[in-house]
Formats: sequence, structure tokens, C-alpha cells
Amino acid sequence: MQLSPTPRSAIRRGKIRARTDRADLADVLASSRICHLGVVVDGCVRVLPTAFGVDFDGPDRGGSLYLHGSVAARSLVDAPTGEICVTVTVLDGLVLARSAFHHSMNYRSAVVLGTPRVVTDEAERALALDAIVDQVVDGRSTHLRAHTKKELAATVVLALPLYEASVKARAGDPVDDASDIDAGGVWAGVVPIAETTGKLRTSADVEPEVAVPQHVLDVADA
Amino acid sequence: MQLSPTPRSAIRRGKIRARTDRADLADVLASSRICHLGVVVDGCVRVLPTAFGVDFDGPDRGGSLYLHGSVAARSLVDAPTGEICVTVTVLDGLVLARSAFHHSMNYRSAVVLGTPRVVTDEAERALALDAIVDQVVDGRSTHLRAHTKKELAATVVLALPLYEASVKARAGDPVDDASDIDAGGVWAGVVPIAETTGKLRTSADVEPEVAVPQHVLDVADA
Repeated sequence: MQLSPTPRSAIRRGKIRARTDRADLADVLASSRICHLGVVVDGCVRVLPTAFGVDFDGPDRGGSLYLHGSVAARSLVDAPTGEICVTVTVLDGLVLARSAFHHSMNYRSAVVLGTPRVVTDEAERALALDAIVDQVVDGRSTHLRAHTKKELAATVVLALPLYEASVKARAGDPVDDASDIDAGGVWAGVVPIAETTGKLRTSADVEPEVAVPQHVLDVADA
Repeated sequence: MQLSPTPRSAIRRGKIRARTDRADLADVLASSRICHLGVVVDGCVRVLPTAFGVDFDGPDRGGSLYLHGSVAARSLVDAPTGEICVTVTVLDGLVLARSAFHHSMNYRSAVVLGTPRVVTDEAERALALDAIVDQVVDGRSTHLRAHTKKELAATVVLALPLYEASVKARAGDPVDDASDIDAGGVWAGVVPIAETTGKLRTSADVEPEVAVPQHVLDVADA
């Protein structure tokens, strides 16, 4: 399936950076723990950081991207009346060129457009909420008790089809004007950027005999 | 000046996480190299990652947040006809609770709403473009040649007042239900997250006698 199947999800600017493989979408989504959700509330565009989960085998066309929030959150509750945009961005490096104009960033980003579906099936809601937890730390959800009815009643879950999506990426060195390279004397290069985890902090109220589980050790410095 | 001066920029959900000091806005903006820009294009909300610059002494109310892009980029050229939203998010930690419901993230985020101004004054345009470069690596702009007329003609610069803004933040341990703490047996805690820089890569076409400048050494591992 083509990654950007509609004119409005086709990349117009910076086509050299467009990616067309759905594997690139999966890579970007797997590389971030937060997304930025764009919604229109009271006629105003709002962009809010939030957690998300992914199930490429989900029931929506192209798979399902899941969002969740309080039933009292207007950004989620009102959103189904219109379209939303979910953007996931991974910053990989600072591209320091010889001119301000050619400064750039190495990055990977995915933009998913569509009208979300309110997930009502209880089994799918539970799967979606597990996917959102596992997006933060893979394997965490199997370590936890089941969601309670009260928790589920307080939570709205939305599914966005992973169908109308586009991916852009930049990698590599700065691209400078020949005249600036010829002039010489200015340092240029890339400063790599990565999201790293620090030394984990166990909550004070955890019993001393409870060991740090492997799924946490896998992501943190013990 | 109050940070969230209008009803629509007042935080309704999660008020416990609301910050009200303009110093918190400055902190969030200083801690990130990218923002997410929300615009409405052809009636559809779009969220795009982009660079930004900040000048708290800029001519807009509360100071100026600068954005730039190609004159051919519809997201920027069409945006001035309507309002935009700029969101900056810093992820500080993964909050792993005993229940999926209480999982969270430690973060700092700023949301700035408003109608952008197209910057036409050439001196302000140059200052804005320098601010955008210096947001990536502080001090970089003074190391570079002046912007050319051709570069300036190809670039649109927008200013958004840093007036109608809100800041939210979460820090600290998970907050679990007493019943889950009493039940025991589940590890809970925080995995700190930080954006780190790797070993810098000098472009192959930089002359061997050009040393890595101090402003780059200040942000990267040499």
C-alpha cells in the first residue's frame, strides 16, 4: 500500500525528504514515546503533546493509531466531530552549515491525518490502552493488573487509521553553497542528538523485595 | 504579566500541572530545539515540526516567537490569514505506575496561540533568522556570514506574540491508588529521559586547519 495515498497527504515541499515505504512509518512511530495531536477546538487550532499506541493489525485501514484521555478533555471528546492530525517527530541531529540559510536538522517525522473513531468495544479499548502503555516501555502492560470498570468509564479512546500518512526524513551532512565552501574558514558538520534514559528511580513506597523487572532494565540504566 | 491571560489560553484540564510564571515559559522554550506548528490548511489541521527562535525583547506583546520557512511553504504563507498554535514539549521522564491508568510522563510543555505577523522589516528579519539559528546552537549566528538578499527573498519570517501562552509540567514519582500500593508486588518508579548530543561529525569538505569552534564544543562531544 502506498504510504501517502491521497493528494492532501502527499508531500509538496521538500520532496527529496519524502519517504514512501510503510516501513518508514513504522520506524518513526516506534522511535518516539509522544506525539503532537492537532485538533480544532472552538474554531482554534490546538497542538497538544500526548501519549499514543500503535497496532498495525488494528481494525482501521492501514492499522490503528490509538489516543486516550479523560472523558472531560475537550480536545479528545470534541475531536471526533472533525479531522485531527497526529505528528510524531524524532530529532536525530543538528546540521550546522556555513550559512544560516543552510542550517537544518536531521530528523524523521510522520504526519497522520484523518477522522478518528471513538473506540467502544471493550476488548479493543483494553488492547488500545495496553498498546499506549507498551509504547512507553515495551512489555509493561503484561506486568500490570487489568483495567477497572471505573478506569475504563473515565477514559475515552480514539483510533486513527494509519492510512493517510506521510513521512519525511533528513540525514547526513550539511549541504553548503559552493561559494561558501570555496571561501573556507567556517566549521561545518553534524551534532548527533539522541533521547537517552538516565538512572532509574524506584518509588519510595515500593517494597524492598520487589526487583526492578526486566522490561524496565531494558530501557533504563539500573 | 500573567502567563495565561485569556480564557482560551487558561488551562482547564490538569490544573495541578499548570504553571503561571513567565519564567516557566522561558525555561520550556530554552529547553527545546524544535516546536510543533499547528495550522489550518484547506480546512484541515496540520501539525508540522519546525525550528523556532525566541526574542523576549521582540516587538510583539510579551515578546516574539519567530518561525521561518520557504516562501513556497503553504503552511507558513497561508497561516497569517488565521490563527496558529505553536507547542514546545520537553520530555523529562517515563512515569511507571502500578496500574496502566496512572502511567504518565514527566514533561514540560508550552502552548502559544495567536495570529502571526509577517515580518517585513529587514533588520528584524535578520535578527529573527539569527535567533532561529542560535536556538539550535547558541552563538552560532555570530560565526556566519550575513544573509544574502537572495536568501532573504526566499524566506518568509513570522512572529507570534509570546502573550497568549500556557505552560504545563509534571515532575516526580507515580501517584498510585492506595489499593494498588497495599496489594504490593509491582515495581513503580521513574525512568529519566534526556536529549543528549553524540560525537560531532565534521563535514569532509572542511579544511583540516579549521578547528571546531567553542560554541559547537559547548553542545557536543568532540
